[in-house]
Amino acid sequence: MKKDVIQIAKNAKEAFLKTMTLNGQTKNEALKKIAQNLEKNKNEIFKANDIDLKEAKILLEKKEINLATYNRLKLDENKLNDLIKGIYDLIKLDDPVNQIIWQKELDKDLILKKFSTPIGVIGVIFEARPDCIAQISSLIIKSGNCAILKGGSESINTNKAIYKIIQNSLNEIKNFPKNVINLIFSRDDVKKMLEIDEYIDLIIPRGSNSLVKFIKQNTKIPVLGHASGICHIFVDENCDFENTKKIIIDAKTQYPSACNAVETLLLHKNYPYKNELINSLKQNKIKIIETPENYSIEYGDKILNLKIVKNTDEAIEHINKYGSKHTDSILSSNDENIEKFMKYVDSSSVFANCSTRFSDGFRYGFGAEVGISTNKTHARGPVGLEGLTIYKYKLFGNNNIVEDYSKGKKTFKHKFI
Amino acid sequence: MKKDVIQIAKNAKEAFLKTMTLNGQTKNEALKKIAQNLEKNKNEIFKANDIDLKEAKILLEKKEINLATYNRLKLDENKLNDLIKGIYDLIKLDDPVNQIIWQKELDKDLILKKFSTPIGVIGVIFEARPDCIAQISSLIIKSGNCAILKGGSESINTNKAIYKIIQNSLNEIKNFPKNVINLIFSRDDVKKMLEIDEYIDLIIPRGSNSLVKFIKQNTKIPVLGHASGICHIFVDENCDFENTKKIIIDAKTQYPSACNAVETLLLHKNYPYKNELINSLKQNKIKIIETPENYSIEYGDKILNLKIVKNTDEAIEHINKYGSKHTDSILSSNDENIEKFMKYVDSSSVFANCSTRFSDGFRYGFGAEVGISTNKTHARGPVGLEGLTIYKYKLFGNNNIVEDYSKGKKTFKHKFI
Repeated sequence: MKKDVIQIAKNAKEAFLKTMTLNGQTKNEALKKIAQNLEKNKNEIFKANDIDLKEAKILLEKKEINLATYNRLKLDENKLNDLIKGIYDLIKLDDPVNQIIWQKELDKDLILKKFSTPIGVIGVIFEARPDCIAQISSLIIKSGNCAILKGGSESINTNKAIYKIIQNSLNEIKNFPKNVINLIFSRDDVKKMLEIDEYIDLIIPRGSNSLVKFIKQNTKIPVLGHASGICHIFVDENCDFENTKKIIIDAKTQYPSACNAVETLLLHKNYPYKNELINSLKQNKIKIIETPENYSIEYGDKILNLKIVKNTDEAIEHINKYGSKHTDSILSSNDENIEKFMKYVDSSSVFANCSTRFSDGFRYGFGAEVGISTNKTHARGPVGLEGLTIYKYKLFGNNNIVEDYSKGKKTFKHKFI
Repeated sequence: MKKDVIQIAKNAKEAFLKTMTLNGQTKNEALKKIAQNLEKNKNEIFKANDIDLKEAKILLEKKEINLATYNRLKLDENKLNDLIKGIYDLIKLDDPVNQIIWQKELDKDLILKKFSTPIGVIGVIFEARPDCIAQISSLIIKSGNCAILKGGSESINTNKAIYKIIQNSLNEIKNFPKNVINLIFSRDDVKKMLEIDEYIDLIIPRGSNSLVKFIKQNTKIPVLGHASGICHIFVDENCDFENTKKIIIDAKTQYPSACNAVETLLLHKNYPYKNELINSLKQNKIKIIETPENYSIEYGDKILNLKIVKNTDEAIEHINKYGSKHTDSILSSNDENIEKFMKYVDSSSVFANCSTRFSDGFRYGFGAEVGISTNKTHARGPVGLEGLTIYKYKLFGNNNIVEDYSKGKKTFKHKFI
């Protein structure tokens, strides 16, 4: 029997009142059980993945999906091992919630404590990558939140198989609340979910620009995500050839469809190896585009915009104008230019002398990520456990009233303790 | 000549690229200048306030505004002194932005630093309290943001007078960017502002529930605010009479129209002084209501819901169902019940043995507040400087590429330093 989305959300909200206070040990036990059961039932997962792959093959032949989507769909032994390792990494991290952030004496008998807490019920809509569901569920569990998940339709069998393993694992943990991780399937369900701001606290879309835009336009619930990843590399005049080449090729070709792949190369007008560099990039099957109309395009492919700039200032200005506040990198040996770039580029991640592809939850040491945010509020950049938390204030008094302070009988101390 | 809202927002966005890197000293100089000039030009402010008061008097007689609004409008010597003192308090606080939050070695030559940063351009719509404009502007300046402000129409002359003083003060500071604090006047301008998500990063409405709801329904820009303040006090069975009475009277009558005033009293069924307490509250002109239909009403007046509950669990359940996640207090001498209440009540501020009226930026030691948030994301509770900040990641490398790590040639260290 299919449950109604509103009922699912209501149940999740009730579950949250229990998960928000779970201790770290219980949550880690749940994660360990999930990791063990994923390992134990891997053949079941691969079987389900095969069904998805067969169906996707037909779609590929009909050109209804592209090769990149097809390739992302495959869950092999290596990917599953990475996934399981990721869960064990997450177990090792500190409990991100129910921790004291600071405490302050408002007065000698009036103590204010700021505690980290989970957010609530989080709706996550993700693309056809079958490792997403286990990764996101693990982050949700560790951070004490609850989730309603909608996976890409192409990976539906893999998602169901992994979801079943997660549910069975959580059932094995004594007193673990029910309805913490929930799965919905249709686009209609997503539309309904976007309306339930009474029970859902945050929506995280992971997918195409059009999906993210559609969601932002159709909900009053806060949305955490990125509409696009237009990343830049600025090559200063003093860069050597080998490192420049190595970094650009990594940033463009190591995984071209990733949102942190570089889209535009800003080259200092005095960079001495311009022709050699362009030749090298072409040899690496990177197509170079030099038309300004394309500065806001996320190619997701081995295509790179090239613009010659006269200095660091012009590079900064270009990025703040055309970028998507995702990740931008300066290659330079001039400390002043590096500092200026890092300071004035208004992006969530700004890099010096390395590939934009480092912009990622795993690489930042967050264990995993629910996505990369280009928002200016709540969480920016790769969002791991911390981005799934908020805080609450606890004030411990001794029959204190405000009138005493407003009439000047008592005065606040405001001393951190 | 009246400037177009889009142009104002565009200019503010440009100004932000300069304010985001201002050092603490420059910002404090600006605040000091504002405080000095408010003091110096106080007669001008009082004169403007008199015009507003005269016009409001007519509206009051026509019953187009109520007495509470009229009273809030008055800016006297005391209120101005408090305001100026608030600015000096803010100066004393640490610079909330461009500070290292943490740094981590991803690898020996790849260092990730998380820096606090301002958010960007913030639109603030506030009610007819003439001290708001100086308070909000000070917080915006100290946090390195830029603002577009729309004040209540009843205080338009006072707002203009204070705005002029702020602008003149900022002009006196060498190299202080232009267009940091901007004022708009009409509802049409507000409607336009809500559409400019390209240039505006956050909207903070301070006003009636209907205003906040209208704004949430009409913008894609993130909104930080509270739709209502339905605060509770739960009185446990073991409370003494005098303290219970004192706290409830403070929480209900010290400023009944404040959002942190109590609306519902949850009384333990075995509380021994029920009748005495009700009599006392009535003697203090508090009207007691005992009908469940009213549990979600914010009276803003000396009216109090009363419900008898059988224990702490029922109180918690009631609050999580009917509350607005604002501020809720338990009065008890039972540590177990206090702990349970503080843990399981899902509100931004949970108090033990004190008045709900302490829920406030000044009282929490934040210097001032832009408002109290009942959101579950970005900022909760009283929002001061910290709630006006976000962060960015800076990664300092040595020609590092991702391929080396994905192929296993190198491994991440992920060590906090």
